[in-house]
Amino acid sequence: MTKKRIAIDMDDVMAAAGKKILYTYNIIIGTDFNEHHFRGKEYYEVLKEENYHVVREEIFKPGFFRNMEVMPDAVEVIRKLQERFEIFIVSAATEFPNSLKEKIEWLEEHFPFISWKNIVLCGDKSIISADFLIDDHEKNLRTFKGKTLMFDAIHNQKIEGYQRFKSWREIEAFFENE
Amino acid sequence: MTKKRIAIDMDDVMAAAGKKILYTYNIIIGTDFNEHHFRGKEYYEVLKEENYHVVREEIFKPGFFRNMEVMPDAVEVIRKLQERFEIFIVSAATEFPNSLKEKIEWLEEHFPFISWKNIVLCGDKSIISADFLIDDHEKNLRTFKGKTLMFDAIHNQKIEGYQRFKSWREIEAFFENE
Repeated sequence: MTKKRIAIDMDDVMAAAGKKILYTYNIIIGTDFNEHHFRGKEYYEVLKEENYHVVREEIFKPGFFRNMEVMPDAVEVIRKLQERFEIFIVSAATEFPNSLKEKIEWLEEHFPFISWKNIVLCGDKSIISADFLIDDHEKNLRTFKGKTLMFDAIHNQKIEGYQRFKSWREIEAFFENE
Repeated sequence: MTKKRIAIDMDDVMAAAGKKILYTYNIIIGTDFNEHHFRGKEYYEVLKEENYHVVREEIFKPGFFRNMEVMPDAVEVIRKLQERFEIFIVSAATEFPNSLKEKIEWLEEHFPFISWKNIVLCGDKSIISADFLIDDHEKNLRTFKGKTLMFDAIHNQKIEGYQRFKSWREIEAFFENE
């Protein structure tokens, strides 16, 4: 039987991108923000506009995506899911050309069991065909034809209508019945 | 009405990759091969194994994908198709991490009317969902669910079962009826 396919987003699902943005912001601007300041908001709603642009420039610079923490339990759960499912990593990355190679290298370091064949770096994810999509952004989940899993993130607290998962352990439990 | 989507391969469809590989081979090995030596064959069938590896190493080096000729009429026809269709560029590129940024830059230079949102850099193209796929490789066309257009290339001469297009003008004519 053909394995079902799970498409998995990188930033804020596999990699702690939001945490890195916050850390970068605090370092550059000299603030002391933590996640609570951003609960239910996008970064641009909290950060001063002139500072937001400073952080955005950082995201475009080489190195930004290379060093990020792995989200808790992501390695173990994805490795386990790969036994029963085809895993594709699908990252909206073409907006950030410097991130592309870094994302491949980051995956090679932390998820060496995922082949380059199963990595997709794109812009608009509506071109992706799979059975499941795990993502933190509503814009990606909305156009997806298969089953959607919303990964809980500080910016998506107000979004409703999707099954929400607060951790990789919750995702692991969901797939035990699939 | 929603526009139909055309997914377009890059190497040997938009960009003259085979020509560059041949040129690179001749420069490095000191041979004088031309396209006729490769008609209906993959490169590894013609090149000596030890030399094939030399060329393969070149493909992995920075710069290889940045400078390639555009295939004749590709710019004009794709620009025209974009008026009636949604165009996605889909390149199997994650095997070559150095190529990723270069492919984005190459597209920005030659096809500035294509947004980063419509670029997909992947490995296995069976994850792509679109109405049409223009590609020179049977492995990509075989798993595609929509209509397939095989772009004629020296290596795919023996492949049958696909509608074959020898130029972008032939592709232009095909889409006049779609």
